[in-house]
Amino acid sequence: MSSSALLSSVLDRIDQTQEQAIERLCALLRIPSISTQPTHAQDCRAAAEWLKNTLTDLGMNAALHDVKWAGPGHPMVVGHAPKQPNKPHVLFYGHYDVQPTDPEHLWTAPAFEPRIVEEPSGRKVLVARGASDDKGQVMTFLEACRAWKEIHGELPITISVLLEGEEECGGANLLPFLKENAESLKADVVLVCDTAMADRKTPGITTSLRGLMAEEVRIKCASHDLHSGIYGNAAANPIAVLCKVLAELRAEDGSVTLPGFYDGVADPSDDVRARWKQLFPNDASLLEEAGLSVSAGEKKYTAVEQTWCRPSCEINGISGGYEGEGFKTVLPSVAMAKVSFRLVPGQDPERLRAVFRDFVKARLPEDASVTFTSHGGSTGFAVSETSPFLKPALEALTDEWNVPAATVGSGGSIPVAGEVHEALGLDTLLIGFAQSDDRIHSPNEQYGLDSFHKGTRSWARVLARFADLA
Amino acid sequence: MSSSALLSSVLDRIDQTQEQAIERLCALLRIPSISTQPTHAQDCRAAAEWLKNTLTDLGMNAALHDVKWAGPGHPMVVGHAPKQPNKPHVLFYGHYDVQPTDPEHLWTAPAFEPRIVEEPSGRKVLVARGASDDKGQVMTFLEACRAWKEIHGELPITISVLLEGEEECGGANLLPFLKENAESLKADVVLVCDTAMADRKTPGITTSLRGLMAEEVRIKCASHDLHSGIYGNAAANPIAVLCKVLAELRAEDGSVTLPGFYDGVADPSDDVRARWKQLFPNDASLLEEAGLSVSAGEKKYTAVEQTWCRPSCEINGISGGYEGEGFKTVLPSVAMAKVSFRLVPGQDPERLRAVFRDFVKARLPEDASVTFTSHGGSTGFAVSETSPFLKPALEALTDEWNVPAATVGSGGSIPVAGEVHEALGLDTLLIGFAQSDDRIHSPNEQYGLDSFHKGTRSWARVLARFADLA
Repeated sequence: MSSSALLSSVLDRIDQTQEQAIERLCALLRIPSISTQPTHAQDCRAAAEWLKNTLTDLGMNAALHDVKWAGPGHPMVVGHAPKQPNKPHVLFYGHYDVQPTDPEHLWTAPAFEPRIVEEPSGRKVLVARGASDDKGQVMTFLEACRAWKEIHGELPITISVLLEGEEECGGANLLPFLKENAESLKADVVLVCDTAMADRKTPGITTSLRGLMAEEVRIKCASHDLHSGIYGNAAANPIAVLCKVLAELRAEDGSVTLPGFYDGVADPSDDVRARWKQLFPNDASLLEEAGLSVSAGEKKYTAVEQTWCRPSCEINGISGGYEGEGFKTVLPSVAMAKVSFRLVPGQDPERLRAVFRDFVKARLPEDASVTFTSHGGSTGFAVSETSPFLKPALEALTDEWNVPAATVGSGGSIPVAGEVHEALGLDTLLIGFAQSDDRIHSPNEQYGLDSFHKGTRSWARVLARFADLA
Repeated sequence: MSSSALLSSVLDRIDQTQEQAIERLCALLRIPSISTQPTHAQDCRAAAEWLKNTLTDLGMNAALHDVKWAGPGHPMVVGHAPKQPNKPHVLFYGHYDVQPTDPEHLWTAPAFEPRIVEEPSGRKVLVARGASDDKGQVMTFLEACRAWKEIHGELPITISVLLEGEEECGGANLLPFLKENAESLKADVVLVCDTAMADRKTPGITTSLRGLMAEEVRIKCASHDLHSGIYGNAAANPIAVLCKVLAELRAEDGSVTLPGFYDGVADPSDDVRARWKQLFPNDASLLEEAGLSVSAGEKKYTAVEQTWCRPSCEINGISGGYEGEGFKTVLPSVAMAKVSFRLVPGQDPERLRAVFRDFVKARLPEDASVTFTSHGGSTGFAVSETSPFLKPALEALTDEWNVPAATVGSGGSIPVAGEVHEALGLDTLLIGFAQSDDRIHSPNEQYGLDSFHKGTRSWARVLARFADLA
């Protein structure tokens, strides 16, 4: 029996069990597995245990693996299904950790109490922290596996699964873990479900990704907070020092001013630019979901080029002095900012970290000192368009969505793509069903029930196509 | 009997009852009368009641007066002692409200549990929020009155007292209250104890003060917080917009760049500059208590000139994006800063408020909007050096401290000086015993027991000198 004949009953099974699948996803969403906050360490472990049990249900040999190379040490979940002779072997990667939930007051309901909301268009979405990034997306793959297993008693190809708990907090343990377990994790290709569709109707495979270099900068001037009346004008103000340094990170034309920042950065091909232009004919079409209309980056690139293939510099947080209600005439001792750079292939995060630190230090007045904290670094990545798995995956997506699947870029950072290439020598296919208005990392994060349902069906089709590759 | 003969027993009484005086001050310090925080409204009223009872103890006809012109509406405390025929009439002004206590974790003990700490030099200080600003200073005057009353059965001159509860939060009710009660509050001179000594050994009367214009600026770009990977580069970042605007408020030479900011601002006379230079021979001598060495303001003025007679611009607080532990790759929707300008005579706070708002609006990119919140405004003030009360007050201070008393400037804002001039036509003598290392507005605020004791004795002497004026 061909795998396409087997597929039909699997798709029926997915349609018939959608309600139970949603309930399983909600159970995972109720675990507040915020990886950056030490108070949630036990919750991270609970999410890992829950997933290990799910993998065991799918017939896998599954276990938690402690990580030991860097903090915070949330465990890896690894599962291996029985080998299918003469079939490809895929390694599926996802993450069970989620972003913090602040600002809490902007959530319309508690972040870890998932609920289904109907949008004005009639589309239903599941709202909860992690609904899209990445629990909902991970569960599309695992539910596809579940349907195959329940209908046919086994999976159509050889599948291993690796789920980490530190993707949202630097993920410093992933690369050494991959290296130490290279033998058992080695497969033919890596699949990741942590990206968005090309647009709401067009499925896509992401073939370029940005890396990340993140720094926390603390500037200190006076030995203690001062009265701004008594010292104002004469005493160095660390907020003013910080603002001046940060303001100088971008030139008038929107480019980043760090020396050598763009060294080694290649422009996209005319072909790629033309394809992107079809997806986003103007800047407003990319920005409108954010309530914006004009791109803020380098003036000589379109908004989609700015986010998919140009490196960026963003201030992700700033804090200093009195931030509460009313006013306090304080001249603070310390001010802090969190700054991140999205990187593209050709940029070295650690070289640029050193350049950034020198840039800040060179702009400090006398009496000001600075301390830096590294919050991770990863290189940008471009996926080979010649991988034998790319075409069948695009075909499977096209079958499910009835629209030709696209290859797209992504502005986000998914370090695993670069790291599996480094540690295991494998290509990665980034296939995701998120939408750009899923509000990932923001209050009221959501995942469309259409994304969840058709995403699950898409994976079932991808597995069938891969089974036919053998 | 001359007042100087009467004085000696009053000074003895102050010496003998210092312990009880400290205990009374501690009772007032235990009331957390933070005026900017609505949750402390009842505490503000409790502090007002406590002071009303104290004034009643001193033989005054005392009452609370509700204010009605602006929020938050903490009551005025007013007391009138019986008229002393043919003696001057002074109106003493102070405030019972205190600053917020954040950052709480830098206090070595709770802010409203006063305690006596011995410094390495052997000097003892009372540590608590409000110890110096202004409860400790207010109590020097009231304890001097208490000693006169207890020893001689009456005060040596006619004394009225006005204590407000909104000095730290804009004080918008003071001027209308003064105007409505001008008849009953009219005196010959106003005395205020809310300033510092010229230095640790030299008493001083402050004859110039800066005003204040304070604004809260909120910049909004996207409709909601965004993922910095997906939107970074293309979406306007309100923190970056804010930093750029704030960085442009000062030129390279340290001057404030608001158009017309220095219009009407006069330089101090050579004589005044020379006297200030004697007090602070170099910038480091003013800044060393702040752990600094180099002045940060206009390069062509000394640090003491920058703080005593030059207008300033300070960023008192800034906030936006993720400020917690770890990192969050958010591109926030909103960023906020609190900015204040210290003003000198000749500058109009409301004109400059409009100039500041225009300055910000002119620098906003498309897609960014701004909202402003006013946090009060007051003009700068210079006290007449020809007041008949100035010389006897300087003599009284010289007697107590055995060092010639100085006339000094102050960078802080004490709006009452300008407002009593406007509403009552009166001069104000600003006589204070604080030290520049009292950490007012900061964690571990303190007031030297020497300031408290000799400050009380100083006021006893001032009252005796004024009694001889008649």
